[in-house]
Amino acid sequence: MAEFEIIHKHFAPLAGKGAGGLLDDGAVLDIPGGQQLVVTSDTSNRGDHFVDELPPEDAAKKCLRSNISDLAAMGADPFAYQLNLALPKEIDEGWLAAFAKGLEADQKEFGIFLSGGDTTAMSAGALSVSITAFGLVSEGKAVSRGGAHAGDLAVVTGPLGDAFLDRMRIPYPRTAIAPLIRQYAKAAVDISDGLPADLGHICEVSGLAAQVELAKIPFSKKVHEAMHSGTKTPQDILTWGEDYELALAVAPGDFDSFKTEAGKQGVELSAIGVFEGGTPDVRVMDKNGEALIFEKTGWQHF
Amino acid sequence: MAEFEIIHKHFAPLAGKGAGGLLDDGAVLDIPGGQQLVVTSDTSNRGDHFVDELPPEDAAKKCLRSNISDLAAMGADPFAYQLNLALPKEIDEGWLAAFAKGLEADQKEFGIFLSGGDTTAMSAGALSVSITAFGLVSEGKAVSRGGAHAGDLAVVTGPLGDAFLDRMRIPYPRTAIAPLIRQYAKAAVDISDGLPADLGHICEVSGLAAQVELAKIPFSKKVHEAMHSGTKTPQDILTWGEDYELALAVAPGDFDSFKTEAGKQGVELSAIGVFEGGTPDVRVMDKNGEALIFEKTGWQHF
Repeated sequence: MAEFEIIHKHFAPLAGKGAGGLLDDGAVLDIPGGQQLVVTSDTSNRGDHFVDELPPEDAAKKCLRSNISDLAAMGADPFAYQLNLALPKEIDEGWLAAFAKGLEADQKEFGIFLSGGDTTAMSAGALSVSITAFGLVSEGKAVSRGGAHAGDLAVVTGPLGDAFLDRMRIPYPRTAIAPLIRQYAKAAVDISDGLPADLGHICEVSGLAAQVELAKIPFSKKVHEAMHSGTKTPQDILTWGEDYELALAVAPGDFDSFKTEAGKQGVELSAIGVFEGGTPDVRVMDKNGEALIFEKTGWQHF
Repeated sequence: MAEFEIIHKHFAPLAGKGAGGLLDDGAVLDIPGGQQLVVTSDTSNRGDHFVDELPPEDAAKKCLRSNISDLAAMGADPFAYQLNLALPKEIDEGWLAAFAKGLEADQKEFGIFLSGGDTTAMSAGALSVSITAFGLVSEGKAVSRGGAHAGDLAVVTGPLGDAFLDRMRIPYPRTAIAPLIRQYAKAAVDISDGLPADLGHICEVSGLAAQVELAKIPFSKKVHEAMHSGTKTPQDILTWGEDYELALAVAPGDFDSFKTEAGKQGVELSAIGVFEGGTPDVRVMDKNGEALIFEKTGWQHF
């Protein structure tokens, strides 16, 4: 099966306005006046970022959602995405068809369309999926990691930790509250590398420290059970990442309104700590007021 | 060396306006009013799309230029790009530093900047580079594959064929004539898969046939020698691809002006044939008026 057949059969049906049916050298996208383009990329390698056994529909969703989650963290609404595939030479058409089906379902779910990409073979036999996603945000309204101030609350969506217990789990990005993030969040990041690492990114860029109370972190019920049974430590859970929830900096006076409105969108917010002046660092305090010790703060690629 | 160190050391210095020093979940790009965004992607796998021995500076240039060439074919001016890397776990920092140096040189050469991306490890040990490039074009001025008309001349930039003889060759995309392409070309495509295949794309999308005279194709001197010596056939050369020259449809009355103005930009144009009505197909005629027979029209990924 040639590249053009693959594109025609599996991916052209996913193409949206400006993509020209994936028949051109590039897509031509209209960016509405007064909007800025938010661009984010994620590469997912089979065996590293998703397990071999993950059904291809779910692999597609996981790859696309990791990008959509980054858009949500910027306060951007999903718009379009490019799909770059490096596939084993012995292409499995059933895998491709199922992968495209997963993308199709998520395009409807999150209001995003395929604008183009590239489909290639890799002799090494590995499989790598790179997605570059585009979002739109009103001018000056994108939320960065650098806007937190001392005294802001450290807030997370939840629950956290399920990705650690279930390697087959597909995250659900928090696009539903993107408009609220634009309105209420002073800084935001998606929790893909683990809470201490990602909250640490806000600290580094904002030039702040953060202190978090372990007891306030909204772990799921299963994660609580695993920690209470002693089989898993909080450090195991917190540094795994892959939750694709959000960590936010919110002014204390805004938190109640934000929480109420997010709740109406089905998203639970938890205030887990506070940003404060000092050397960029995230401290997670246990019930005795002692800081947990982390050997690593999050997912390490290399 | 951790992902963040790699980004900080090698890629953050390449970041441009809106990329936030690569410290955020995404870049925030301003698209000037009245402009459309042209988006294109190319994936290049080491061992497939560039040889293992290619110096990393050149590999970087080849990966970036294959995208810039697509922008030129759309008549778009280079703007920014996302870089997604899937690297072997045993990362070679010298390779990375040289790769970044190649990108830096080409950013200056072509007026493009890094807006973001992702740097990942792949346990399989392969190396894959996906780039998504952005260009800008005045509203409605993008040149597609679908605008050719019967009677238009089939025109190419040249010379063609050098990529077949020299696997280490780095292409030079024709961005210099992007403004002229917007002005004069009714359809365009970049010749990355081979002339018959890529000219065939214009034919398919425009619903036309094309007849080309072999004697008018601007092969380089070395390629002419290889063909005259009988070691290589025209089919070998024409179906190899990788030239990253352009094939264009141009109204006969516009060709002389276009050729003169392109010449001033150092780009040689050759009229090699004509588009005509009929089933989409590209015929390459030899000096006896016989159509060459091709077993395949171009590069096959799978």
